[in-house]
Amino acid sequence: MTGEFSFIDRLRTFATHPAARGLADDAAVLSLPAGEIVVTHDILAEAVHYLPDTAPDDVAAKLVAVNLSDLAAKGARPLAALLGYTLGESAWDMAFAAALGEALARHDLPLIGGDTVRLVAGSPRVLGLTLVGAAPAGGAPARSGAKAGDALWVTGTVGDAGAGLALCRTGASEPAELVRAYLRPHPMLAEGQALAPQVTAMMDVSDGVLIDAARMAAASGLAVRIAIDALPLSDALLAHAGNDCDARLAAATAGDDYQLLFALPTGQTPIVAATRIGALAEGEGITLSWQGAPLTLPDSLGFAH
Amino acid sequence: MTGEFSFIDRLRTFATHPAARGLADDAAVLSLPAGEIVVTHDILAEAVHYLPDTAPDDVAAKLVAVNLSDLAAKGARPLAALLGYTLGESAWDMAFAAALGEALARHDLPLIGGDTVRLVAGSPRVLGLTLVGAAPAGGAPARSGAKAGDALWVTGTVGDAGAGLALCRTGASEPAELVRAYLRPHPMLAEGQALAPQVTAMMDVSDGVLIDAARMAAASGLAVRIAIDALPLSDALLAHAGNDCDARLAAATAGDDYQLLFALPTGQTPIVAATRIGALAEGEGITLSWQGAPLTLPDSLGFAH
Repeated sequence: MTGEFSFIDRLRTFATHPAARGLADDAAVLSLPAGEIVVTHDILAEAVHYLPDTAPDDVAAKLVAVNLSDLAAKGARPLAALLGYTLGESAWDMAFAAALGEALARHDLPLIGGDTVRLVAGSPRVLGLTLVGAAPAGGAPARSGAKAGDALWVTGTVGDAGAGLALCRTGASEPAELVRAYLRPHPMLAEGQALAPQVTAMMDVSDGVLIDAARMAAASGLAVRIAIDALPLSDALLAHAGNDCDARLAAATAGDDYQLLFALPTGQTPIVAATRIGALAEGEGITLSWQGAPLTLPDSLGFAH
Repeated sequence: MTGEFSFIDRLRTFATHPAARGLADDAAVLSLPAGEIVVTHDILAEAVHYLPDTAPDDVAAKLVAVNLSDLAAKGARPLAALLGYTLGESAWDMAFAAALGEALARHDLPLIGGDTVRLVAGSPRVLGLTLVGAAPAGGAPARSGAKAGDALWVTGTVGDAGAGLALCRTGASEPAELVRAYLRPHPMLAEGQALAPQVTAMMDVSDGVLIDAARMAAASGLAVRIAIDALPLSDALLAHAGNDCDARLAAATAGDDYQLLFALPTGQTPIVAATRIGALAEGEGITLSWQGAPLTLPDSLGFAH
């Protein structure tokens, strides 16, 4: 019982925005300019989205990052956060709260409300975050806006987090770059804001490039083809997993990258660093190529919840 | 695995607002007028906020009602909802989805997004709802605005839900009015919107009149005194529990009423039906009276989470 109050007291040390009303009111009240807002709510559940032995500061950072990644995909500017938190062991809770404060501060994102609950002992934690953001002036891109003939692009590199997850499952902490890519994803907020006016469609890569590209194509009523050899892989992943077709398929079907996947009319160059990995066309479904030749689809296109 | 998709498909049958984008995008995009928004996120957890054998339609209705009650306390007009849902047994899930659609439709409240997760089998459900509302033009009342000399008022009757919970715990279904008050609370949205321009402070009664009045007084830097004999009790509760001091204290310390508790300058009459139950004054803490004489505080002022 004291746990909730000390946890909320810890949150209050950084929930200082006027909209938070000291986390002592029924709801948060937030002043906004006229226009569109973007609202997202993503859950991280223990033993589903993170391993039970993951450190609380990694869980807090990831909870913030995966939700910010959804705003990034909309080109949105983060405005405020509300936390839905299941209390557990007190030291873990307090470490989580401290790390949450740091993660929110890095993005100048005020905590303005939420709820906490103490479940029956032994229940897995279920951590939810709601984010409110301001949509870009020209409108928020959707998954469904791609046009036949558009090229498909992705920011950064893919597959690092998937390799990092496999390493964490074995208890390994090296290569550190891969483990860190899994534990501490970087939401592409600046990139999303820059890209929003330019793209025809955009989404974040949460479940794997292939499955997410297939989702964008389906939402847009199109087919997509991806050149597996074009996928951008990090030096760390190439050194760890190699560069053959199987290694690239593993990278293309691994989740947790939180890069931005977007469509641009052919001939346009993206305003941020990105790699062209395929194209959208009339039709439906996803096809792959490897060194110019068709490639059979893998059994799984990515992480299906 | 199919569970999530059939559940989300069921949600899609009523998540038809453009902001929902078919529940197929990273985030919801909502057009708003300029001004203040009210955002709230409340959790209902199995075996904490509802008994494990509670019917899914009751849980869905209550999840919507308790969150709407937070908007009511701000005088806000509901605009949109996002659901955070832990999947379980499929028939329960589908019944929940159907009832959620009905509950949202009753308040013309579009479902625009959220997240689902399948926990390890046997984990208690953790159900979160985020609501976005439009604040009243004159500003949303806070808990902290009460002034010394204000009278304290409450809408409706109190204690019905607490008696209903006690009945549900024994498996009883009568008196139906009390059981229903617990299972199907009515959010006081119209009352909250009408009262918002008038009150100096307002909140909903979620944990019990005494503890919530003490919270309003503390937030306002004041003391509060409550006349236990003035509390409005329903005929059903009077018939069930009697009208002596103990029965009234039980009603005043029971949660789940979701009535509105508000402060008004002395001499003003509230614009909606309500009962004057006390007053705020310089000082701190809560004092009770019974038939004009001071009354010792009960061990517990209400439901402390």
